[in-house]
Amino acid sequence: MTGAADPMPRIVLLCRDPALEAWLAEVFATHAPHLDVQRPGDADAGAAEVAVCWYPAAGSLDRLPALKLIHSIGSGVDHLEQDPSQPLNVPVCRVVDPDHSLGMAEYVHWGVLHFHRRFDQVLNGRSTQQWQRPVQRTARDFQVGVMGLGAIGTPVARRLADAGYAVRGWARTARELPDVATYAGDAARDDFLNGLDVLINLLPLTPATQGLLAHEVFDRLAPGAALINCGRGGHVNEAHLLEALDRGRLRGALLDVFEQEPLSVDSPLWRCPQVWITPHMASAASDACIATQVAENVRRLGAGLPLNNLVDPALGY
Amino acid sequence: MTGAADPMPRIVLLCRDPALEAWLAEVFATHAPHLDVQRPGDADAGAAEVAVCWYPAAGSLDRLPALKLIHSIGSGVDHLEQDPSQPLNVPVCRVVDPDHSLGMAEYVHWGVLHFHRRFDQVLNGRSTQQWQRPVQRTARDFQVGVMGLGAIGTPVARRLADAGYAVRGWARTARELPDVATYAGDAARDDFLNGLDVLINLLPLTPATQGLLAHEVFDRLAPGAALINCGRGGHVNEAHLLEALDRGRLRGALLDVFEQEPLSVDSPLWRCPQVWITPHMASAASDACIATQVAENVRRLGAGLPLNNLVDPALGY
Repeated sequence: MTGAADPMPRIVLLCRDPALEAWLAEVFATHAPHLDVQRPGDADAGAAEVAVCWYPAAGSLDRLPALKLIHSIGSGVDHLEQDPSQPLNVPVCRVVDPDHSLGMAEYVHWGVLHFHRRFDQVLNGRSTQQWQRPVQRTARDFQVGVMGLGAIGTPVARRLADAGYAVRGWARTARELPDVATYAGDAARDDFLNGLDVLINLLPLTPATQGLLAHEVFDRLAPGAALINCGRGGHVNEAHLLEALDRGRLRGALLDVFEQEPLSVDSPLWRCPQVWITPHMASAASDACIATQVAENVRRLGAGLPLNNLVDPALGY
Repeated sequence: MTGAADPMPRIVLLCRDPALEAWLAEVFATHAPHLDVQRPGDADAGAAEVAVCWYPAAGSLDRLPALKLIHSIGSGVDHLEQDPSQPLNVPVCRVVDPDHSLGMAEYVHWGVLHFHRRFDQVLNGRSTQQWQRPVQRTARDFQVGVMGLGAIGTPVARRLADAGYAVRGWARTARELPDVATYAGDAARDDFLNGLDVLINLLPLTPATQGLLAHEVFDRLAPGAALINCGRGGHVNEAHLLEALDRGRLRGALLDVFEQEPLSVDSPLWRCPQVWITPHMASAASDACIATQVAENVRRLGAGLPLNNLVDPALGY
């Protein structure tokens, strides 16, 4: 499609986390080696026309006078707000991986099996060579609740129902899902929570959901229930969570998101054996998908073609 | 069905492992409290008419002159051979849980997700507060192979195919399975193994399969592949496995079965961080199922009715 003479716009990688920047450089070197990819310390970085971003440092976008395109490497673009210097007249594109909800469903399914089949108990007994066969409950008696039934929550709930679990779903507005008992709005929330064996949070973070996962929620669940949080760190009242785990009200928590990422090495969460920490890995676009979609938009920019997955500034996605 | 006057035959629990015996006593106390359940040390144990067994100690069956029924708490009865005093004229029944293959599929699915989504790497980095997002591969490019396509292997392979994996199956004789590439016999074994990311063993243990999981198998798999063994401990050449893990030829192994169970605290397997040990838990009949089926056969014995799930001594199941 593109003529040999089309210019190839220069790219700079902007990530607050140096490890992420290094990983991203490798992703492009592996999957799109034809691109001109600079890191912020490189001599020609300031002449970049495309900024490929994940949580850019404040002021980093402001140092790019030739900027023509800001590209997120994920489906979310809220992380761009970390840099208040983001020029609002520059178009923003995002990576939309069709496998995004599949990845999330895999992660959550591992977590539900982890607690349902008590791999948590078995793995925590490993250091003392413990050999104790856990109780095996049938999936159809295991109550699993999904908070948030949007583009991610719906396929997650469907997959767990297909796996045989007794699945409930909660959303702000009424939804219908086959084989899932759905609940809507604040008035139905306690009924949704009552006696759940695992609670899965996939809600967006808003003022209404900030700190939602606290004692008044945990105390509704079945004794010894588990929490899986794939929403945002801000959903969890961490002090309440640690206390509920400590007194056995909850048996465990699988956490993929945190207020601060990477999670500080000083966080008490690391020291609680019932907390299973993963590095915000539940569902990312694949390396190949990131490189391919960014490369295609860079080519389109150079060739003056319309861009893919352009974000509508009014909608924010 | 039963008249109030029917006698209720006395039961004794025979397990070599005292922890298992204690657990079994609790299972009956919870789910069938009306039964007369004795433990071997109890004064009236010798008068039991029913022996409920899991790996009975040698000679323990010989001490029951009134024995009328031997009941396994699992679907297998090979463990009864541990007691050479088993009287061959006493009928043997087994517990057949319709959820047996479901439990196995759950266990294997957890294991495949564990390696596919690299939870193994993440959990092993926990002690050093490691925060490293693993590469996310799509399930459809992840090659999973199931050895053994019988009553257990077939639903396991189907479930993994439904979850989106690229699934191959191997059996001694040709089988057809939707969405599963099947291979049959020794001549096709290398083609089946070539490049697999996870190998799952669900074969029966026979002289032909003893020690099968050794270098010549591991070396066919994809570099950094993982092994899931739910067959028998005797399938694995343990020295080869540890060596393959040590030099990185394999990335990990999830093992549920061992030559000696419980696995000895001295086993080098406990000390290898890439080995994930579980206590033969992949698929047991549920507590309620064990208690209900044994209680029903005890009732039938007392009432002179035909027994359920009677083992044919010629077939061994």
